[in-house]
Amino acid sequence: MQENPFAIVARPGDRVADLSTPRPIIDEDRLAANIARTQAYMDEHGLNFRPHIKTHKIPALAAEQIAAGAKGINCQKISEAEVFAAAGFQDILITFNILGPQKLEQLAALNDRISDLKVVADSTATVDGLSAYFASRKPLTVLVECDTGGGRCGVQTPDEARYLANRIHSIPGLSFGGLLNYPKPGAAELVQAFLAEALSLLEEQGIDCPIVSNGGTPSLFEAHLVSAATEHRAGTYIYNDRAMVRAGHCSWDDCAMHVLATVVSRPTADRAVIDAGSKALTSDLLGFSDFGTVVGYPEAVITGLSEEHGVIDLSECSDRRPEIGDKIRIIPNHTCVVSNLFDTMVFHRDGVVTRVEDVAARGLVW
Amino acid sequence: MQENPFAIVARPGDRVADLSTPRPIIDEDRLAANIARTQAYMDEHGLNFRPHIKTHKIPALAAEQIAAGAKGINCQKISEAEVFAAAGFQDILITFNILGPQKLEQLAALNDRISDLKVVADSTATVDGLSAYFASRKPLTVLVECDTGGGRCGVQTPDEARYLANRIHSIPGLSFGGLLNYPKPGAAELVQAFLAEALSLLEEQGIDCPIVSNGGTPSLFEAHLVSAATEHRAGTYIYNDRAMVRAGHCSWDDCAMHVLATVVSRPTADRAVIDAGSKALTSDLLGFSDFGTVVGYPEAVITGLSEEHGVIDLSECSDRRPEIGDKIRIIPNHTCVVSNLFDTMVFHRDGVVTRVEDVAARGLVW
Repeated sequence: MQENPFAIVARPGDRVADLSTPRPIIDEDRLAANIARTQAYMDEHGLNFRPHIKTHKIPALAAEQIAAGAKGINCQKISEAEVFAAAGFQDILITFNILGPQKLEQLAALNDRISDLKVVADSTATVDGLSAYFASRKPLTVLVECDTGGGRCGVQTPDEARYLANRIHSIPGLSFGGLLNYPKPGAAELVQAFLAEALSLLEEQGIDCPIVSNGGTPSLFEAHLVSAATEHRAGTYIYNDRAMVRAGHCSWDDCAMHVLATVVSRPTADRAVIDAGSKALTSDLLGFSDFGTVVGYPEAVITGLSEEHGVIDLSECSDRRPEIGDKIRIIPNHTCVVSNLFDTMVFHRDGVVTRVEDVAARGLVW
Repeated sequence: MQENPFAIVARPGDRVADLSTPRPIIDEDRLAANIARTQAYMDEHGLNFRPHIKTHKIPALAAEQIAAGAKGINCQKISEAEVFAAAGFQDILITFNILGPQKLEQLAALNDRISDLKVVADSTATVDGLSAYFASRKPLTVLVECDTGGGRCGVQTPDEARYLANRIHSIPGLSFGGLLNYPKPGAAELVQAFLAEALSLLEEQGIDCPIVSNGGTPSLFEAHLVSAATEHRAGTYIYNDRAMVRAGHCSWDDCAMHVLATVVSRPTADRAVIDAGSKALTSDLLGFSDFGTVVGYPEAVITGLSEEHGVIDLSECSDRRPEIGDKIRIIPNHTCVVSNLFDTMVFHRDGVVTRVEDVAARGLVW
């Protein structure tokens, strides 16, 4: 990418009000409170906490989560894990089925590099592929992914979990690391039933199950209901977003990420156009019919996003309406995907920039 | 971003079948045919063609479009324009209201650097802001953006266009460059009526109107119906996508971009999970209820996208269903936003990689 003399986004001491837009910003105090609140909950319930770094993709933030008490991190792709390994993290769980020669080669290099790498698998095909590659290498730890109702990856029954765990346990090159699931929120009983039965079957076979990993920010504060779990994984909670407020997991004041945008046009009394489009907010609706909440303008509705423009319907606004040149703040529907659109993240306190971090694992898609 | 020894995505001569996924790939022959087809249409109807570079963000491709006969390029943001100016492009239209001191400073530097920079404006506020900055500098060319039914930016009536054109024409630091619109597709009559009246009003005032710019790939093949236009802008046509096929603007065989993905899980007979999620395809629905077309599996439906996983419903597939490890190709709903997610774009012919280009203007959000 071309060197851009204007590419310095912000410096510590800059005023947030002067930042060029569109630009996501992170409130330091809300960030710290989110980290502390979740860790306190996990500590209270004796759960290990494994933050998912996809939400921020910033090694310094993962370090803060670890410093608060988290045990290890969760990555979604090998390339993300490589970035964090380079930053010194040793306990990394990659929650993805890893297939194909290039990826297996990367995985092997990573396994040699750090002390506690773990991946997941949900099929014989994936397990056998890993085994073939790792048979002559330092053994790879593999957890069995279970579908407890999430409807994505995972073995479908506790008995299939037992079968696959057995296979991992006995096949060359691999070490069985435990069970993992990514549940539908509100499904604690289902999750507990599945995992407890799987554990029981493993116990019958004399197979040790070191980790039972539950997950998701939506399931965060019911994590204690799954007594079979030894750890919980969550990403979104660190910044929070409109979807998390809707789910009742946090308040608006716990949303650490705001996306700054400027009103660039007021074509009519009822319409504003801002410079934040899908390339700043993404089109993720997450069940909403509009694209984010405008702070301070509760009746404003972001009705449409082009790639670089956002169209806001002001028709329900009873008070002041934003004018051309005004800066507004948007709480995005989904915070994790916004991080992936920006090379840097700006942090602030009391209207002043505190630091600017590289979004080190941004855009690493495999 | 960390240096990654595995970051070399592909080399010329590699087999497409061996590429790691998810990965968008561009068919060279379809690309060339799309460029040629659109240019031929424009030439036939005596329209200047101004490609929008947002779809590819690659200077080498803009050069191919110019070589085929295009006149100038369209960028959406200053930072995009800077990348293309650095690559040697002199005639650049930025279709955005530019506001704020940092952006005006960048714009002034750009205006000094290239010979034919143009921006748009749709309000007195924007025009006056530009004038204040450029009064002591090389004059900036400004077109008036007109809302001919697109419902985004733009003055609302031909008389407002006349007013703003007059203001640009007489205010210090600016030069009136013409009229521009971004219409709703199928609205050629509305567009023609608006622009023709605005032109007539400008003529009454003795204000020369060098450019009348119409736009959009959806409106591409009705462009000749707007006789008032001197040029047409379009981006998506160069790659095409599922939305363009639905609109009847191209066939499936004109879709140059496929997104390669690997099946990483078959949890049930009716479900496949692929490694392409919203961070490869985006969540852009564009009126579809699912997330792309799977080449070769017409009954397969991509029902859900997490950030790194795609869930495919195979229940309607009467023939073979893809297995774990199989690579599939997806025609995305929206091609432009996929470009913005990848640092490089891989081109191919006959199953062999021909070149890999930097997506030079990727992720430049202002």
